[in-house]
Amino acid sequence: MRVDRAALYDLFAEYGALIDAAQYDKWLGLFAAECRYQIIPRENYERGLPAALVFCDSRAMLEDRIRALREANKYNIHTDRHVIGLPRIVNDALAVEAPFAVFQTDQEGETRLFATGLYRDRLEASGNSLKFCDKLILLDTFAVPSLLATPL
Amino acid sequence: MRVDRAALYDLFAEYGALIDAAQYDKWLGLFAAECRYQIIPRENYERGLPAALVFCDSRAMLEDRIRALREANKYNIHTDRHVIGLPRIVNDALAVEAPFAVFQTDQEGETRLFATGLYRDRLEASGNSLKFCDKLILLDTFAVPSLLATPL
Amino acid sequence: MRVDRAALYDLFAEYGALIDAAQYDKWLGLFAAECRYQIIPRENYERGLPAALVFCDSRAMLEDRIRALREANKYNIHTDRHVIGLPRIVNDALAVEAPFAVFQTDQEGETRLFATGLYRDRLEASGNSLKFCDKLILLDTFAVPSLLATPL
Repeated sequence: MRVDRAALYDLFAEYGALIDAAQYDKWLGLFAAECRYQIIPRENYERGLPAALVFCDSRAMLEDRIRALREANKYNIHTDRHVIGLPRIVNDALAVEAPFAVFQTDQEGETRLFATGLYRDRLEASGNSLKFCDKLILLDTFAVPSLLATPL
Repeated sequence: MRVDRAALYDLFAEYGALIDAAQYDKWLGLFAAECRYQIIPRENYERGLPAALVFCDSRAMLEDRIRALREANKYNIHTDRHVIGLPRIVNDALAVEAPFAVFQTDQEGETRLFATGLYRDRLEASGNSLKFCDKLILLDTFAVPSLLATPL
Repeated sequence: MRVDRAALYDLFAEYGALIDAAQYDKWLGLFAAECRYQIIPRENYERGLPAALVFCDSRAMLEDRIRALREANKYNIHTDRHVIGLPRIVNDALAVEAPFAVFQTDQEGETRLFATGLYRDRLEASGNSLKFCDKLILLDTFAVPSLLATPL
């Protein structure tokens, strides 16, 4: 099956925009009913040590996680900004990758680079749109996991 | 009306490229004859305090502003680099958003993150191309407004 | 000749992804058999002083360079992450530009902005895909050339 490029680009644009706008419920809607969401330090992944920083293997688990993050975020008030590079179709049409940088701004209005990494995802077609059924976030920046207060 | 994606992506690619190349006259050409250009700190905007850092509600005003920036820029010599994420079509086809990061390089060749934010724009079709008729720049990084010496 | 946009976007997505994955042999495959690869500080270029930091005017030379970088990289262990903006078609269809930011992560998992700049490239069609025949990298960040241990 060939992916529709417009739908592919829109999915990634929506993904970043909805986190940055703190619209987490809409953001959850980008995931398939059966889905997996993981954040793994790139280094661990490449060494075959897939100890995840975040591991959710169902949508219910992901919803719980988001609720917890929202609570934690009260003590780490910041806004996010995702800049996501062009998605790349890997093997077949529904395995895709995209690089990202996330910037955070604190309450004093200072912006810092927070993390970079690679989304390595599997998609599924859902009507005219696409949804994430397996989202693997390979995190370059493994020095900051304790500060994860919003989804990447 | 449905937006042409190629024209949409080109508009944003041009927008960043022309600022970075200091081709401000060509850059002005990306705006419709009747246009508005505003930079508002994201925080103010979300609290309903739309005190703009920059507010131009006509193209003549925008042209004036650019002339003033050029003058100011003599005392803050740097080059810009915009990295703009994939544009996202919001409601109808002519309301679009795109996240951005702007980096600045000083005369010693050191590059720093300058600001991040979100373009929230309305477009109008103009022949085969698109132009900005309302450009709202929601600026994450409100700590640095005094350093605004080139358009965002 | 008009460029195929999907092929254009894929070429740039591949370009960054293959460097970041350290798949340099595949990355070399994105260049035409006869090709040129140069890194020039933007400032020098604009002043008409095209003293290149890296200058390879054949693919054999580029292959040699990559081998040397790999050796050097043993003493500057890091991972790269490219975030490349939307490519822009400049004059005709095969002269294109794209802005980029490169981030590097060290062995402690800390990520820093490494460099920004502009790709100013000429492409050639090769079957259904596109290849680089002339890649000019205008580097904003000229303060760090000595740290060039992986291609930009």
